[in-house]
Amino acid sequence: MSGSIDFYFDFSSPYGYFASTQIEALAQRHGRTVIWHPMLLGVAFKTTGGAPLPMVPLKGPYSLHDFERSARFHGIAYRRPAQFPLSTQLAARAMLWVRQTQGDAKAVEFAHAVYRKYFVDGADISQADTIIGVSAALGLDGAAVIEGAGSGSIKEALRTDVDAAIARGVFGSPFMIADDEPFWGFDRFEQLDAFLKNGSI
Amino acid sequence: MSGSIDFYFDFSSPYGYFASTQIEALAQRHGRTVIWHPMLLGVAFKTTGGAPLPMVPLKGPYSLHDFERSARFHGIAYRRPAQFPLSTQLAARAMLWVRQTQGDAKAVEFAHAVYRKYFVDGADISQADTIIGVSAALGLDGAAVIEGAGSGSIKEALRTDVDAAIARGVFGSPFMIADDEPFWGFDRFEQLDAFLKNGSI
Repeated sequence: MSGSIDFYFDFSSPYGYFASTQIEALAQRHGRTVIWHPMLLGVAFKTTGGAPLPMVPLKGPYSLHDFERSARFHGIAYRRPAQFPLSTQLAARAMLWVRQTQGDAKAVEFAHAVYRKYFVDGADISQADTIIGVSAALGLDGAAVIEGAGSGSIKEALRTDVDAAIARGVFGSPFMIADDEPFWGFDRFEQLDAFLKNGSI
Repeated sequence: MSGSIDFYFDFSSPYGYFASTQIEALAQRHGRTVIWHPMLLGVAFKTTGGAPLPMVPLKGPYSLHDFERSARFHGIAYRRPAQFPLSTQLAARAMLWVRQTQGDAKAVEFAHAVYRKYFVDGADISQADTIIGVSAALGLDGAAVIEGAGSGSIKEALRTDVDAAIARGVFGSPFMIADDEPFWGFDRFEQLDAFLKNGSI
């Protein structure tokens, strides 16, 4: 088997961030590549009736604790941002624009930088200023990124991507699909690893 | 540290069943004992706004697949029951009555037997006949179990236990608490193991 792994994530998802730090290494171990798909969980929630974890009674406080504990357990830098959760539409659109104009590698670099900016530095990534700063640090023209992210074609591209993800059954973050086999959650990396190794579970 | 591990589970929860097959061995590795708490997830859902996994769009079909894959991955016998999910009030009450009259060890034996009857044999454990059969196989008087499970004091005991669990933050199955540290999900056994080993994560 040699197909790519589809990696779906929302920029406001801590588990998506954790997964983003390890998905490339996991794929490389099995000679696979990764296709990164920024997702809007809010749209999926309209289908599943879900809600952002921190908003859910009982589950919310537990989740905030589990984010921090899971980060320590896996040795991943993490700090709960002041603004959490937040809108990730701008960050997702910006990533699509970076991909369209600068290619896949730069887009993945951009995704890593946005996640770090949010979950390590605690910046508000829903704000244009933050995205401009992230872009500049990668040698991109921040103003051009914001303008591109706001274009009709990029808005439409994200809408199409998110609808296609939901049509494919993606409802959470992170969500991985390899050879049509779906895996939801950073805590399914072990099964994904076994699946890629053995071709089945 | 030497306190017990509180183990909360709903008899209609596949992940609770998976956990039930391994929680005792996990505890023993760290010189701990386990206190088994049958839970009613339906009551917790009233607080969290949750719903049984199979009923949720997108997440439902994924979950049915994940139950089977996770069982294979962990080498646990599992077959999706025809009736799923179902009411677990009778099974939970019966377990409390077995504990009250026969002691902890028999109650745990009863819990294992109910889970196997449901998730291996596929029987409808919401039915008195099924509980009578499970009881008889353990050398218990099935009619007495059903009568005891229906008594006012047992009904009240389960209500009190479930309310106490929710007050403690328990919202899912399985849910483990060790030294006030909460762990939700069979996929947190690795972290629970590390916590019991090191005293922290």
